[in-house]
Amino acid sequence: MEFSEHIKTANVEDVVLRQPLHPSSRGTLCITGHHLLFSVREEEGGSSRQVLLLLRNIDATEKSVENLFGYSGLFSNAGRSERIAGSSGTITIKCKDVQVLQLDIPGMEQCLNIARSIETLSGLDCVSDMYPFFYRPPDLSLQDQWGLSSPERHYSQMKELHDRWRLSTVNRGYSVCPTYPPAVIVPKEITDDMLLKVAKFRQGGRFPVLCYYHRKNGMVIMRSSQPLTGANRKRCREDELLLQVVIDDSDKGYIIDTRSSQQAQQARMMGGGFESKSCYSGWKRLHKQMERGKALQESLIKLVEACGDGSHNMDRWLSKLENSKWLSHVQTALSTAGLLAECVERDGHSVLVHGSEGTDSTLLISTLAQLIMDPSCRTLEGFLTLLEREWVQAGHPFQQRCAHSAFSHARLQQESPLFLLLLDSVWQLWHQFPLALGFSEALLLRLATEAYASDYGTFLCNSDQERCSLEVKEKTHCLFQALLRPKEREPYSNPLYEHTELAIWPSVHPQSLQLWRGFFLRWTLQTRHLEEAQEEIRNMVNEWGKLVLT
Amino acid sequence: MEFSEHIKTANVEDVVLRQPLHPSSRGTLCITGHHLLFSVREEEGGSSRQVLLLLRNIDATEKSVENLFGYSGLFSNAGRSERIAGSSGTITIKCKDVQVLQLDIPGMEQCLNIARSIETLSGLDCVSDMYPFFYRPPDLSLQDQWGLSSPERHYSQMKELHDRWRLSTVNRGYSVCPTYPPAVIVPKEITDDMLLKVAKFRQGGRFPVLCYYHRKNGMVIMRSSQPLTGANRKRCREDELLLQVVIDDSDKGYIIDTRSSQQAQQARMMGGGFESKSCYSGWKRLHKQMERGKALQESLIKLVEACGDGSHNMDRWLSKLENSKWLSHVQTALSTAGLLAECVERDGHSVLVHGSEGTDSTLLISTLAQLIMDPSCRTLEGFLTLLEREWVQAGHPFQQRCAHSAFSHARLQQESPLFLLLLDSVWQLWHQFPLALGFSEALLLRLATEAYASDYGTFLCNSDQERCSLEVKEKTHCLFQALLRPKEREPYSNPLYEHTELAIWPSVHPQSLQLWRGFFLRWTLQTRHLEEAQEEIRNMVNEWGKLVLT
Repeated sequence: MEFSEHIKTANVEDVVLRQPLHPSSRGTLCITGHHLLFSVREEEGGSSRQVLLLLRNIDATEKSVENLFGYSGLFSNAGRSERIAGSSGTITIKCKDVQVLQLDIPGMEQCLNIARSIETLSGLDCVSDMYPFFYRPPDLSLQDQWGLSSPERHYSQMKELHDRWRLSTVNRGYSVCPTYPPAVIVPKEITDDMLLKVAKFRQGGRFPVLCYYHRKNGMVIMRSSQPLTGANRKRCREDELLLQVVIDDSDKGYIIDTRSSQQAQQARMMGGGFESKSCYSGWKRLHKQMERGKALQESLIKLVEACGDGSHNMDRWLSKLENSKWLSHVQTALSTAGLLAECVERDGHSVLVHGSEGTDSTLLISTLAQLIMDPSCRTLEGFLTLLEREWVQAGHPFQQRCAHSAFSHARLQQESPLFLLLLDSVWQLWHQFPLALGFSEALLLRLATEAYASDYGTFLCNSDQERCSLEVKEKTHCLFQALLRPKEREPYSNPLYEHTELAIWPSVHPQSLQLWRGFFLRWTLQTRHLEEAQEEIRNMVNEWGKLVLT
Repeated sequence: MEFSEHIKTANVEDVVLRQPLHPSSRGTLCITGHHLLFSVREEEGGSSRQVLLLLRNIDATEKSVENLFGYSGLFSNAGRSERIAGSSGTITIKCKDVQVLQLDIPGMEQCLNIARSIETLSGLDCVSDMYPFFYRPPDLSLQDQWGLSSPERHYSQMKELHDRWRLSTVNRGYSVCPTYPPAVIVPKEITDDMLLKVAKFRQGGRFPVLCYYHRKNGMVIMRSSQPLTGANRKRCREDELLLQVVIDDSDKGYIIDTRSSQQAQQARMMGGGFESKSCYSGWKRLHKQMERGKALQESLIKLVEACGDGSHNMDRWLSKLENSKWLSHVQTALSTAGLLAECVERDGHSVLVHGSEGTDSTLLISTLAQLIMDPSCRTLEGFLTLLEREWVQAGHPFQQRCAHSAFSHARLQQESPLFLLLLDSVWQLWHQFPLALGFSEALLLRLATEAYASDYGTFLCNSDQERCSLEVKEKTHCLFQALLRPKEREPYSNPLYEHTELAIWPSVHPQSLQLWRGFFLRWTLQTRHLEEAQEEIRNMVNEWGKLVLT
């Protein structure tokens, strides 16, 4: 497509940029098909400054115009009549990474043109027009391998389970489950024909697959979507058999259902359901209600609004923080993941996790439980590989969930900050165990930004199938690989990291959990000094390393 | 006195100690005149373990007894009839440093004896019977100099102000102001005779004295108590002159009154008052209401209660945290200190600080402002010297304020956690500027404990006069000197410290301020991993230092 048709004014001089924590600066604004670029003229202040923003990162804009008679009006971006003669205008830009910028633009016409371009271009939702399809950094090649691992490689690395588990390619061509990768790990005794039947019995075809093998005791974590038992309590022998063979006759397993018991009952009325005790006798269901969807999105909106509250009222802040319920969601995520890890590591049982669709809170707690139990997930590579497997390949619908963030007035559809909730929960782990994780807070911040707007193709689309049909892996670069390049990876590593084989059990006392200030307040609060301290530690470790080597 | 008369049972075997974060352990309990000692018999588990607690650290006890008929009753320590035959009892010990311990003691009689001993001995308030008068560590001598500095030395170090300020010994023998040290710094033009008159015009004789000289611009901070103008607006020419000569005719000064304007008006009805504009024309009053006394004590009680809440309810925790208002008090302390520092450093004016008595919030904000502005206060020595000057010598009534902490059911009299509020505010600074302060969180924690119960004499008594009459400096050791011993100081230093000449302006946005978890949750939350990280950084710096030297 031609982006230029949406750009009536590409360059404006004498624009004033206002940002918290920065002095306001005057410079040139430039709009391209994918970016907003603000650059300060070099003669002012000596040093030049640039702000480059992906238009995709913009969640909402507001414009306020001032005409010659001093009248000032605030317009939402809902396309009202804008025929007001005036001399300047201000565009407030609210980003998906919770940054807020203001641009004072001389000339009413120019201001309206710029605003219209930003609104249109930031809202385009044709994936193959997005920036990752145009981004070509000099040190990466499209011929490079895309991604860090694959289901095949994951399977081949776990020789211990080859006796009882196999790699099935029943989903090649994405014909059985559109949101699964082409290869998945399933019990050896279950044939592909049986899997076809199980897939029909599970929402969206997400039949139970292995996602984690616990080497210490041979137990596994599986995940799926809900069984479609419906009001008339339909059964599927193959589904029951699949779960049966996982635990043998002697053992028992747990099903962690991320819905309340009542929600699960209600789901049956809508054609969904749960594994009844009578049909799955070896399995014990545990219900842990986790918020998802709209409720979670609204929680984020409230929290970001609270963080932006500039009043100096402590009571109001704490009351708004409480009212957002975000920290309660973090607590639930960590305690449910802790429960899952306890079942596997302490009680020595295999676990199946699912809620309804199996693409959101299911992935959240399986990921956190693996971080808690498995040291190999805690390195920088290990963590990125885990995210690739459990979120990208496993079919978290990034495009739907991350279409908007905390500012958009657009009616909520499929948006929900599940991935951000994961990163926040991981940050809590990182904060409680500063030596046990091989990556830094900077990595979590980077991922939180990239999930919503990125130069890379990793978080595009909703599933492997969609990425395949749009040739994402051929036409874009992979974020995870970019982060692991030798000259990139340093800020994303934890200089204090020390490998430990032990599980890291998070404290989920409300008193232990904290607002992730590094993310939610990074644009408004001075955190420079904290970064300096991190930098200092990093330098020391480096210098020390050099001294030890010489 | 004979402590033994309060000890009917000195030793009990087979006592079980229960503490959060520790497995319960069985051992021997021993009560001495000043200590509770619990030791685990060595044969159990191989390693021996000891818990030594100053009885003075105990804020409240509760005992619950179980008789042979299974009846269980909870007794407060309010001396009820305790003639219950039974076989065992439990004593819950709540300490001033917010630690809570439980002792299961076999034998009703023994349990009641122990409880009575603890209650009596922990409540003795004769200063010269306290443990600092008995503590004799081998590597300290009573002949050592006591304290880090003196008013004389402080004055001699600031040559720049000798032109306009002098050291007055009008208070020798504590005859003018019982809560001031014998020597204070006052304007040169004000004679001792004039000071006598000013002292009569200020509550408790606390006439305005210099506490800080700002080298960059020659401005000063002074502190005092309120003027006793009373309802009939009494004046004191000498008081007016004293303030007049500080600012010369050309300049103006600020008075920061730590009460609201309304409170100051009310104080006049009770014989107190404030500096009216008409009589002190060169001075501008700013009112910033700061909580003190009972309200602050109740805030601490509520906060500690909230921290001990074992329910896993996030909303309830945040609501209780808000309701305690403790963080609001921290915010007010830092923002008032920030205002004071702004007046001196940015606006270039001298400031007089006072509230009513001038022994509490006055000291709080003068101390914080000095930390913000003056790099020499930010080293380990500098900070301890600052505390010695602004709190110990300047007459903060430690004995009254720290008689009880958050648990005592005793009716509140003079208790108020001003010093703890200072340490919390300093921790916020430390947290916001991890490189700028030369001391560690461990120092702040140690000071928070020592202020309530200590082996050392530093925080005994309410004033220099009392310490003098009880010969504290001759018969006890000085905490600050003990902390600075080469083999002691390491954990109290900040390995990342880098000297900076710049002022460190704290952010006082509610979003920037955090609960001081290190103090309030240290006995209940697992912080081992955070300490490990600190230790790791410390080791690295040490190793690095060694490598650089060789």
